[in-house]
Amino acid sequence: MLRGLGDDATVVRARPYAITSIDTMVEGVHFRSAQLSGEEIGHRALAGALSDLAAMGAESGEAYLAVGLPRGSDREQVLAVARGAQALAGEAGVTIAGGDVSAAPALSVCFAVVGWSDDPGELVGRDGAGAGDVVCVTGELGGSGAGLALIEGTARLSDESTAAALRARYARPRPRLAEGRALAQAGASAMIDISDGLAIDAGHLARRSRARLELSLQALPLAAGVREVSAALDREPAAFAAAAGEDYELCFCVPPAGLAAVEAALGELQRGVGFIPVGKVSDGLPGVVFTDGGQALSGYEHQL
Amino acid sequence: MLRGLGDDATVVRARPYAITSIDTMVEGVHFRSAQLSGEEIGHRALAGALSDLAAMGAESGEAYLAVGLPRGSDREQVLAVARGAQALAGEAGVTIAGGDVSAAPALSVCFAVVGWSDDPGELVGRDGAGAGDVVCVTGELGGSGAGLALIEGTARLSDESTAAALRARYARPRPRLAEGRALAQAGASAMIDISDGLAIDAGHLARRSRARLELSLQALPLAAGVREVSAALDREPAAFAAAAGEDYELCFCVPPAGLAAVEAALGELQRGVGFIPVGKVSDGLPGVVFTDGGQALSGYEHQL
Repeated sequence: MLRGLGDDATVVRARPYAITSIDTMVEGVHFRSAQLSGEEIGHRALAGALSDLAAMGAESGEAYLAVGLPRGSDREQVLAVARGAQALAGEAGVTIAGGDVSAAPALSVCFAVVGWSDDPGELVGRDGAGAGDVVCVTGELGGSGAGLALIEGTARLSDESTAAALRARYARPRPRLAEGRALAQAGASAMIDISDGLAIDAGHLARRSRARLELSLQALPLAAGVREVSAALDREPAAFAAAAGEDYELCFCVPPAGLAAVEAALGELQRGVGFIPVGKVSDGLPGVVFTDGGQALSGYEHQL
Repeated sequence: MLRGLGDDATVVRARPYAITSIDTMVEGVHFRSAQLSGEEIGHRALAGALSDLAAMGAESGEAYLAVGLPRGSDREQVLAVARGAQALAGEAGVTIAGGDVSAAPALSVCFAVVGWSDDPGELVGRDGAGAGDVVCVTGELGGSGAGLALIEGTARLSDESTAAALRARYARPRPRLAEGRALAQAGASAMIDISDGLAIDAGHLARRSRARLELSLQALPLAAGVREVSAALDREPAAFAAAAGEDYELCFCVPPAGLAAVEAALGELQRGVGFIPVGKVSDGLPGVVFTDGGQALSGYEHQL
């Protein structure tokens, strides 16, 4: 960073390709202040933006923050939002390089994030899935949705450490930046982050790739505690996990011959998460179908 | 742009240095929908963000838009916001390269804008003003504030074409991108855009440069009609122009020996605006003083 705080704009040294995304979280729409600390609000907003860079396989660089503050905002809460974002930025190797604060009717946190690449051929879009590819997801699903149910009090878990882990999945999601880069370099053909839920996000990927994704509900990796929370909500656990958003895991496609490279690449990461195949890409009408238990999620295909 | 619409993030070819700013305008805070068309709201929000790039002397590149929409938003209004921003982007040579739409309690329009430079030595910050420099402003001041008074009905002008020009200064401000680049290359030592009013923004420049700016109210270039509007508001015209914000002109400093180069550089621009000296940089305590009629603006120095 050559210029930053105190000037009209921030100046940074660039690399050959810039990858940019912008994302906003608004009180009452994307979160409720009563349910999250200021640190968690800052963390989540930055995590959501960085997750888009992860899905491209980009190396993250800088983040620019625009905060909207309601009248009578507590200075301490604002600093907490900044602290929460800063803590995640530190972990993720991201520099919060600029920002803007303005009045607003409700707390809103907008992040523009910039990643860099020396070779755009190493980036992955949503559009490269081909028939025969294996469809995989990283980590575990449903944790964030189950955590929100616990926070809202619509479900309870007797195991407090599992409950705490689920709440953290909602409150402090981890963008899969290292995994995204590793997957892009290992030959993933298409990738998207799971922000709106696997069923919807796989649909975006299917549409962009003009491909048919045949997924198995039974194959979905459920976070610990999701079964119990789903039961309390009277939902089928895998359908719950497929529809729940904000896990910020990655859904990616890879030719079968590339699976070993993917396994090796993710295995090399320190503190990285694993992956699991959940379906395949077929010829046929573009869209997403669940090949078992599809009843519970029928209707998603029509969203395409 | 290598990747854009339909992927998680936008990919663009970069140049050696990236200059980035983020800026938000919110209904009820920065504008009122009843007073502006959707096109004007989009234009103004992008203009405000691009003005920061202008003040650095950066060449503008891409803009990323995050819109917050209140419940029941009119689809036509949203498209109008995008159209207004797109029209200015076209004029300014900017690509609107990505965006995000979310629900929000009030219409908000956030732009992250990115400019590029091959040589950071050609960029100008707020920090380079030195004793002896001449302080200048581009264009004319007070027009936006007077236009707002006309729109709000607190003042009236009998000359309808002057009134229309003032309203346009408020509704469709022009970021001085070409002027900013020309000034940076011609040797401006410090520069800032006038968004909060000359008195405040010159204060930012003075603080960053640790310099004393001695400005003359009588030297300020007033937009046509500002005298009449000020009189209607019972304000002294020059003090009104110095305090009014959102003109998005540039305030810059330059050594006296550089004035000829500045004049030549701005003179070469097609459709560019002129400039006028309004004061000088002196030794003495950092801050801004108005050397005539300062009474009307006393108090500004204390903001430093």
